[in-house]
Amino acid sequence: MNSNDTDPLAFSFSEPERAAIHKVIRSRRDVRRFLPNPMPDEVLRRILEMAHLAPSVGFMQPWNFIVITDAELRRQVKAMFEQVNAREAARIEDPARQELYTRLTLEGILEAPLNLAITCDPRRDAPFVLGRAPMPETDLFSTCLAIQNLWLAARAEGVGVGWVSILDRPATERLLQLPPGVRLVAYLCVGYPIEFRSRPMLEEVGWKDRQPLGDLVFQDRWGVRSGLFS
Amino acid sequence: MNSNDTDPLAFSFSEPERAAIHKVIRSRRDVRRFLPNPMPDEVLRRILEMAHLAPSVGFMQPWNFIVITDAELRRQVKAMFEQVNAREAARIEDPARQELYTRLTLEGILEAPLNLAITCDPRRDAPFVLGRAPMPETDLFSTCLAIQNLWLAARAEGVGVGWVSILDRPATERLLQLPPGVRLVAYLCVGYPIEFRSRPMLEEVGWKDRQPLGDLVFQDRWGVRSGLFS
Repeated sequence: MNSNDTDPLAFSFSEPERAAIHKVIRSRRDVRRFLPNPMPDEVLRRILEMAHLAPSVGFMQPWNFIVITDAELRRQVKAMFEQVNAREAARIEDPARQELYTRLTLEGILEAPLNLAITCDPRRDAPFVLGRAPMPETDLFSTCLAIQNLWLAARAEGVGVGWVSILDRPATERLLQLPPGVRLVAYLCVGYPIEFRSRPMLEEVGWKDRQPLGDLVFQDRWGVRSGLFS
Repeated sequence: MNSNDTDPLAFSFSEPERAAIHKVIRSRRDVRRFLPNPMPDEVLRRILEMAHLAPSVGFMQPWNFIVITDAELRRQVKAMFEQVNAREAARIEDPARQELYTRLTLEGILEAPLNLAITCDPRRDAPFVLGRAPMPETDLFSTCLAIQNLWLAARAEGVGVGWVSILDRPATERLLQLPPGVRLVAYLCVGYPIEFRSRPMLEEVGWKDRQPLGDLVFQDRWGVRSGLFS
């Protein structure tokens, strides 16, 4: 914070600081291919500390972080991925899309030096969590905000993160012995990547393009295009 | 990225860059009190651009951003907040907590120069969104990742963001004329703040403490404490 606290712009970060923040947001990627190099504990600690500083509804901090290194556990998760992924591939009707899908690397469960399960515990502070009752999923949403902090903090350390959603959630929750009520929000592969691609992989391989932001911004009501990007 | 691409640590950001990223994560706050100063369009554009760079399941980019400046619309949202908030206060059994609750400022709907509704459109790319079917809420989760990008990018501009969850969601969705299926994820107040507190407001007023991170980190299974923070 600058010295002149009466000027709202004085709260701004310096130009190089802002550039670093934009750089980390721009260069963050969903990483699926990892080097075997281990991650130093202090790096993992810094990343988790940044996750823990996320906002949460009623300051409930509903998250837990399960660091998974056990090889047998990961083999079981990987086997589940294979099953669910085969089912997913079979759902694609267009043969060219299906063929493309089967060629994609969608996880690094065994290759990454560690996996990280991030959970949401809705029982925390119950029954009264400030602000949650009117929008009950805000505990899950808070957990996601922590995940994005973690993802960016990891990128700043040169560490890649890949979110594996192609899983059997109840089976994974049993494997991790989550208590009833606690749910898995994200299963992440974490480690030093082979590379940070310059564009998202699904964009690079022609699966899907980035949408023009101007099409997604409305003014006051759905469907009324904002003049911001014209 | 540094020149030596074979060294995983070469992907790291510089020390000052990493410090800037930690600083923005540490100093981000849920802001409820705003100055009347308007926000330049280019600042809002930069913030939305950073939100749009968030990861999303199957690269679906399910988010839309509704910039709300209309005074009448905001009065209606504020009236809804008052109703729901009174109901929430009445739910608190402990008289001292209830009294504390009623003294808290929980929104800046009318004071902030603008409000921002962030929605999730699950119809986008349907029926096959890569990776969504096994965990259907990942479209909502993706939207939350964009919100955290936005929140951090705003902080880097000296702009405060406050998430109002104390709302009647279906009524707000009708007010914003969201099509069937599209849902409101976050209703934000956005603008230059009176201040960025050094700690979260709920911590400062004694509503709730920050939890020790070590208590929240497990190894391989729920309940097995990790040695990382011992």
